[in-house]
Amino acid sequence: MTPPAPSWLADVEVLAFDIFGTVVDWHGSIRREVERDLPGIDGDAFARAWRAGYKPAMARVMRGEQGWTLIDDLHRGILDEILPRFGLAHLDEAQRAHLNRVWHRLDPWPDAVEGLERLRRRRLVCTLSNGNLGLLARLSHHGALAWDCVLSAEVFRAYKPDPATYLGVARVFDVAPQRVMLVAAHHDDLAAARACGLRTAYIERPLEFGAAQPKDVTAREGNDLHCRNLLALADLMGS
Amino acid sequence: MTPPAPSWLADVEVLAFDIFGTVVDWHGSIRREVERDLPGIDGDAFARAWRAGYKPAMARVMRGEQGWTLIDDLHRGILDEILPRFGLAHLDEAQRAHLNRVWHRLDPWPDAVEGLERLRRRRLVCTLSNGNLGLLARLSHHGALAWDCVLSAEVFRAYKPDPATYLGVARVFDVAPQRVMLVAAHHDDLAAARACGLRTAYIERPLEFGAAQPKDVTAREGNDLHCRNLLALADLMGS
Repeated sequence: MTPPAPSWLADVEVLAFDIFGTVVDWHGSIRREVERDLPGIDGDAFARAWRAGYKPAMARVMRGEQGWTLIDDLHRGILDEILPRFGLAHLDEAQRAHLNRVWHRLDPWPDAVEGLERLRRRRLVCTLSNGNLGLLARLSHHGALAWDCVLSAEVFRAYKPDPATYLGVARVFDVAPQRVMLVAAHHDDLAAARACGLRTAYIERPLEFGAAQPKDVTAREGNDLHCRNLLALADLMGS
Repeated sequence: MTPPAPSWLADVEVLAFDIFGTVVDWHGSIRREVERDLPGIDGDAFARAWRAGYKPAMARVMRGEQGWTLIDDLHRGILDEILPRFGLAHLDEAQRAHLNRVWHRLDPWPDAVEGLERLRRRRLVCTLSNGNLGLLARLSHHGALAWDCVLSAEVFRAYKPDPATYLGVARVFDVAPQRVMLVAAHHDDLAAARACGLRTAYIERPLEFGAAQPKDVTAREGNDLHCRNLLALADLMGS
């Protein structure tokens, strides 16, 4: 049975969704494609190694050690770095470019399409992702995800957890920060949003890093909501 | 019967849609709301007067006479100017703010939702509008329009027909300009896109300015396609 919704929920007008890990399954999608196209490669380790370079790469940009760079290009830089470690240094330019675009072909978690559709009935729904706009567009097309707006680090020229991204959503929609709720599977993202005055909903994604590395998804203090998946969030929001 | 599609159409990967007049019926929506909420006012003339201030206001911004300004604010400035001419100088701040947001509640043309859904099956679909992101998001929500990406003058900090907007779409999607087709009901918009190397599709909207001022929608040289509405475009594109 769904518990009664807290009364402040009625004031939330905009739901901003983190994408990688929250709405789409980057680990499973990359693992499946790598194991299908590159026989003998450990897709599980490959997916995790690629993702592990992500935060350090963004941090270099945000510290100003590197000019503004789209995630597509950061992903490509990390890919070129890890390929030799997996015995794949021989992949040519076309193969690397194709593999890099696996991030445009990530599959949604099984609950995501229906959950989003239900949530969109009663709230404005947008992305708030570090992924670039072209990536998010192709991902949304691939997964048949329907947004009211597609917002990205590319629009704000800043990566999460920079406040410019969270406050940027409130500015775009011309609402107070507490009328925006960030929906994410990552506590650091949610904490940064909360510091800007946004509401926060944690989504459990225990298999984000694969079945071999289950994630601790126990509830933590601070988040306004804690939901198993997007269907549970829709239940809670009466959508 | 639908004529055979030209062979270059297969290379078009992205359809970028003008919004006001092409996808949504600004004139009819404003006329209906004004005549419902402000009895005695000529909604037809009011809608046209409001829209008539739109291009001059953007031109002032693009000439640098005014700093960067969102369409919501340009609409509000024009509204404040025309209200006295319609005997509505007495409207208070809340009434003006509400009326200004009619641009967030414009209804799609009858063919738009189904046309877009069909076109999205085979192509990436995005907005390319001078409307700001918040406006486009609420408009898309109101009309249940589903985009892969929502692009706006606000993203490029330039209004159409500035080349930065048309070329910006190609850049976001990382494709050559000729792989993008602008879909619009306005020849000047299409001509500017064509000058940037985009493909162009003209959509007939004879009633854009109301039944009292039918628009000449006869075909002109230059546009790659000429379609009655978005369903005809979907037919032509095999969607």
